[in-house]
Amino acid sequence: MSDAHVSRTLGAVFFPNFELLDIFGPLEMFGSVGPEVRIATIAEEAGPVRSTQGPAVSVDHSFGDCPKLDLLIVPGGIGTMTEGANPRMLEFLRTRVAEAELVMSVCSGSGLLGKAGVLDGIRATTNKQFFSLVSAEGPKVEWVREARWVDAGKFVTSSGVAAGTDMALAVIGRLWGVERAEKIAALTEFTWHRDADSDPFTRYLDQGDVGEMAAALEA
Amino acid sequence: MSDAHVSRTLGAVFFPNFELLDIFGPLEMFGSVGPEVRIATIAEEAGPVRSTQGPAVSVDHSFGDCPKLDLLIVPGGIGTMTEGANPRMLEFLRTRVAEAELVMSVCSGSGLLGKAGVLDGIRATTNKQFFSLVSAEGPKVEWVREARWVDAGKFVTSSGVAAGTDMALAVIGRLWGVERAEKIAALTEFTWHRDADSDPFTRYLDQGDVGEMAAALEA
Repeated sequence: MSDAHVSRTLGAVFFPNFELLDIFGPLEMFGSVGPEVRIATIAEEAGPVRSTQGPAVSVDHSFGDCPKLDLLIVPGGIGTMTEGANPRMLEFLRTRVAEAELVMSVCSGSGLLGKAGVLDGIRATTNKQFFSLVSAEGPKVEWVREARWVDAGKFVTSSGVAAGTDMALAVIGRLWGVERAEKIAALTEFTWHRDADSDPFTRYLDQGDVGEMAAALEA
Repeated sequence: MSDAHVSRTLGAVFFPNFELLDIFGPLEMFGSVGPEVRIATIAEEAGPVRSTQGPAVSVDHSFGDCPKLDLLIVPGGIGTMTEGANPRMLEFLRTRVAEAELVMSVCSGSGLLGKAGVLDGIRATTNKQFFSLVSAEGPKVEWVREARWVDAGKFVTSSGVAAGTDMALAVIGRLWGVERAEKIAALTEFTWHRDADSDPFTRYLDQGDVGEMAAALEA
């Protein structure tokens, strides 16, 4: 762990209709690492950005006013469908992914990375409920249907919502040692599912309904 | 479930140095119930309120501009130590707890309820790392040392951080039926720990350090 003491900035990307736990589960874990991590919240414009569940985050940085990002995390949520057609979001992701040491996504966040083209030829996963819908966003991605998360080196993508928190601890373990990840899990009284390949939710594969998802976007 | 169709407002109480996952884990679950739940974010003043981990929530309601609350949830975090000496917070809690159908807390949030005096004579739990420190905030509370959460009827209190999400699903099961809670757990790919009495983190009881906690408050 020669670089364990290096300070890193983690950029958390927000957009309207993001999914709360997708991002705040991982940020709980990264925010518990210590002074080695600074979290920067980012959106197209700074200020309030509302989640699908209702509560809004107060974002600190716009795309144009954003520090250098060592780590990047993209949550999912129904908003990813809209953002996949937002050229400013896709351009931001392409530019910052190129500069980053490590890029994470949770749930349908990998669909957004897929749409940006940065996952082409790379193994990745996404949520189970809307697997076909999201994976269609990145036709050249090597989608993995059964995985809690997929560690493809620079890119680490997780399955739906709660899976992102397990993935975050795995990345913390890689960057700062597994003992650090275990200590954070104990402090947060979190039962860490450490096996990336164990996915009890694959049985729900594509039980989602596109009409239902579209209706939710209208509401 | 005669009241399963009734619409309820859930008040989520914020303060500086709240713990991210304490509140956004439960709000993910309640925010997935459907139109039967509206989440109202509340703090002493509306606007940005920053978590210990760094990201800030954009709070919609001040104490003075807050709708009637059917349900109430109080997160923990090192900020509860400061808030325990804030008379406006304690008065808000006393008033709104009296009116509410059901009151939840996560982690050291129960210390804040204890300080407000509303848990006197009631069974409750709190986080394991700082159990003695937090439970001292409510000397007349019947503290339970080993529990993932404690359901005491109107008051449901959980252990640290991640335990709040398990508790939230239990409350959803009580209010809208267990099938609803199970469906939400599956949709969010969350492995729900359903046994309130099973607490694998009791072994970490009071391994926290008050000096460390105080130092974190200074940072």
